[in-house]
Amino acid sequence: MSIPESVIAALKAAVGPKGAIQDPTVKAAFLTEWRERYVGATPLIVMPASVEELVEVVKICAEAGVPMVPQGGNTGLVAGQIPHESSDQLLINLSRMNKIIAVDAKDFSLAVEAGATLAAVQDAAAEADRLFPLSLASEGTTQIGGLIATNAGGVNVLRYGSMRALVLGLEAVLPDGRIFDGMTSLHKDNTGYDLKQLLVGSEGTLGIVTKAVLKLFPATRDRATAFLAVPDPAAAVRLLGHLREASGDRLTALELMPRIGLEMVLAHIPGTRDPLAEASPWYVLAEVGSPAAGSDLAEVLEGALADALASDLVTDGVVAKSDAEHAALWKLRHAMSEAQKPEGGSIKHDVSVAIARIPELIAAGTRAAQKLIPGIRPVPFGHLGDGNIHFNFSQPKGMDRDAYLAHWEELNRVIHDIVVGLGGSISAEHGIGRAKRDEFLRLKDPVAVAMMRAVKSALDPQGLMNPGKLIGPSGTP
Amino acid sequence: MSIPESVIAALKAAVGPKGAIQDPTVKAAFLTEWRERYVGATPLIVMPASVEELVEVVKICAEAGVPMVPQGGNTGLVAGQIPHESSDQLLINLSRMNKIIAVDAKDFSLAVEAGATLAAVQDAAAEADRLFPLSLASEGTTQIGGLIATNAGGVNVLRYGSMRALVLGLEAVLPDGRIFDGMTSLHKDNTGYDLKQLLVGSEGTLGIVTKAVLKLFPATRDRATAFLAVPDPAAAVRLLGHLREASGDRLTALELMPRIGLEMVLAHIPGTRDPLAEASPWYVLAEVGSPAAGSDLAEVLEGALADALASDLVTDGVVAKSDAEHAALWKLRHAMSEAQKPEGGSIKHDVSVAIARIPELIAAGTRAAQKLIPGIRPVPFGHLGDGNIHFNFSQPKGMDRDAYLAHWEELNRVIHDIVVGLGGSISAEHGIGRAKRDEFLRLKDPVAVAMMRAVKSALDPQGLMNPGKLIGPSGTP
Repeated sequence: MSIPESVIAALKAAVGPKGAIQDPTVKAAFLTEWRERYVGATPLIVMPASVEELVEVVKICAEAGVPMVPQGGNTGLVAGQIPHESSDQLLINLSRMNKIIAVDAKDFSLAVEAGATLAAVQDAAAEADRLFPLSLASEGTTQIGGLIATNAGGVNVLRYGSMRALVLGLEAVLPDGRIFDGMTSLHKDNTGYDLKQLLVGSEGTLGIVTKAVLKLFPATRDRATAFLAVPDPAAAVRLLGHLREASGDRLTALELMPRIGLEMVLAHIPGTRDPLAEASPWYVLAEVGSPAAGSDLAEVLEGALADALASDLVTDGVVAKSDAEHAALWKLRHAMSEAQKPEGGSIKHDVSVAIARIPELIAAGTRAAQKLIPGIRPVPFGHLGDGNIHFNFSQPKGMDRDAYLAHWEELNRVIHDIVVGLGGSISAEHGIGRAKRDEFLRLKDPVAVAMMRAVKSALDPQGLMNPGKLIGPSGTP
Repeated sequence: MSIPESVIAALKAAVGPKGAIQDPTVKAAFLTEWRERYVGATPLIVMPASVEELVEVVKICAEAGVPMVPQGGNTGLVAGQIPHESSDQLLINLSRMNKIIAVDAKDFSLAVEAGATLAAVQDAAAEADRLFPLSLASEGTTQIGGLIATNAGGVNVLRYGSMRALVLGLEAVLPDGRIFDGMTSLHKDNTGYDLKQLLVGSEGTLGIVTKAVLKLFPATRDRATAFLAVPDPAAAVRLLGHLREASGDRLTALELMPRIGLEMVLAHIPGTRDPLAEASPWYVLAEVGSPAAGSDLAEVLEGALADALASDLVTDGVVAKSDAEHAALWKLRHAMSEAQKPEGGSIKHDVSVAIARIPELIAAGTRAAQKLIPGIRPVPFGHLGDGNIHFNFSQPKGMDRDAYLAHWEELNRVIHDIVVGLGGSISAEHGIGRAKRDEFLRLKDPVAVAMMRAVKSALDPQGLMNPGKLIGPSGTP
């Protein structure tokens, strides 16, 4: 059952010619998820230019019973932003609502529309000599509304928290077209349930985020970065505690990488080189930062590393001496996903456990995967400081790519069972969307699922907001 | 309509003789709110010793339609923890469920039952060489469950956030006796709506928190505290930005105090003295802290203050040279509420605005109060770094105390209107409970109230959890 022509006409009138897309070639970019695992369909994409236009769109849909899929920069990894291929869902793209509304340096806050990119927000904060700390690979494209809807993470969560911790206030259009106005920059507000926190991470299933007030920090004026060889993940976990203490809790990132991941980067990414003379089974990228100029953080980090070397937590290491060296070290980490592509198929997991259990996770996951698919090559890497590992598996050398990728769901289930057995989460930062919905429903505590369904029914009784995503019944669109 | 005898018998059987209190003299301490503005009544107080006992209690109440009021250390300031005087609500006190379950230093986490005091948690963290940063005046009595249910704040929110930011996971018994098990120490978990955040700050209206996993930090090894004279609140706001930057964002507290508040402390609190030679209209207490020993924070603070003196942000100041001096400076701040008692009646407000609007709030609130009650003495003080002012008003000298306190609600409305006009919150950290319910319903965005009611009905369809508190209809019990 497609969207009726009369409804399409009303929607087009609501957003005007600049806000309506029906040309199939233009639509394609919005309907394809970037890993190309999902391709949706819709007769119409609307791009409202204002909250008022969006309210009108939502009211038309609510009246006509048309399901709505909100979309930002289309960088999501679980297909939460892609309409179903049945062509009966309206795609609402927020890109035209992209103003930086205000930057208040004294208040350490910034107000912004949902369609602004993360990079635009970082730049606006920097112009006011402030820091907006969220940082991730797609920051030039990804938008604030989507980052809020998915509670995005990235590399600075250890020090600054994920998006949930960085949103002071927000505005959202509810499924019936009412506006929830929570646009305050209050650091403390204990007047009832935190509806803002309910909307953060709700993946567009409870409403459409239209604006936000974000939390800023003093700008970073001193920084030091080290690339370290560690004997195993257990040493990396102990190193985390050591560096947090020794740096005065100024550690902003602690990333874990395996040798095989570094080798893939060195083999496939131009301009990279191994910073250390000898190979190590594991590496850690550590960064400390401070808003105080002249904090001598390079010395602080070097001192902390001397202790770590003496106690065998670290076997070798290098501290960046320049911005260029800093960028070169980070490139090794940032290229780790990209570098897996030329190695054939990669089956991916974005999982978390208590930080102290990361070594167990990696050991058990590696054993189980190798038992399932002999020759499989585990590439576990990521945000050790947050307990979050991107547990990717490259195909065995010489295996057929499609034959390998046919194991995707089977391997997912094996790894997810291990994660849940360790008390962990099957989606640390990417969310559930459509891609992980069935695994989520299989593994999440049924009481929690029942509570979520009760909340969903209470706030979206018609079930029109992003249906089939997150808690939509298994097997439905 | 009281609780039926058969239900009381079943509840007594569920918790055993040690868990049931019916003696009126023993009951009295649990039924009286500490400011003595509310005195509740109940035929029975139950004190379950385990989650299993609590589940049985809740199931009996759900079956019989008996309303439940959860209570921790009974330190709340808005009567959220006091049953109605109609004697038809069961009081459930969590004090016997008070175990520290586990401390995991490597994981920077601590698991605890709801009835443990804040001081017990701070001590357990310290024994593992870690910091649990929440700190407030009643920390020897107040309990973790209540702190979570009210999203407690205190003096370290600027650096570490309020309770909401410090809860990694929790367990709660739902209104029908089911258990929500969210007892994880995950730093990242994007599997659905954050039900934990919905329960934090819900004031016992959605369920009873029974356990939590709390976030720890490296222990503080260096610290410096300064008491500073500032010309006005606007200078204090600018000082906040200056100190955050100059200290490398290691500022842990920034508290504002007016001269009249200091005078009251000096007059009524034994063993206090003015740390500065000359009187100033306003003062700031600033503290910086770091887990790195030898951070020379006293020097860092003195350097930052030299700059502030040169630019007239600060007119005079002293940095504590010893633990005794540190304690003496903090005593001036902590005694500020107590010192108002001998001055007669005090009408209190716990409000917040955007940090940059604090000077406007204080100016407008002072003007309006003086117009309403000539001779009234404003004593605005508190957590400037969080935008949170305890806007207290002492009675005019010589006025009859009761005649003054008869203006309580009138003055509340005047101040709250100003706060809301500035985009602020009428309850920054104390919550709504029963005391602020009518003002909350008068001033909160009706869309937000409707959303909260929808969530409440979805999760507590019988309306048995702490009825009449927070969003209970105005005028009901």
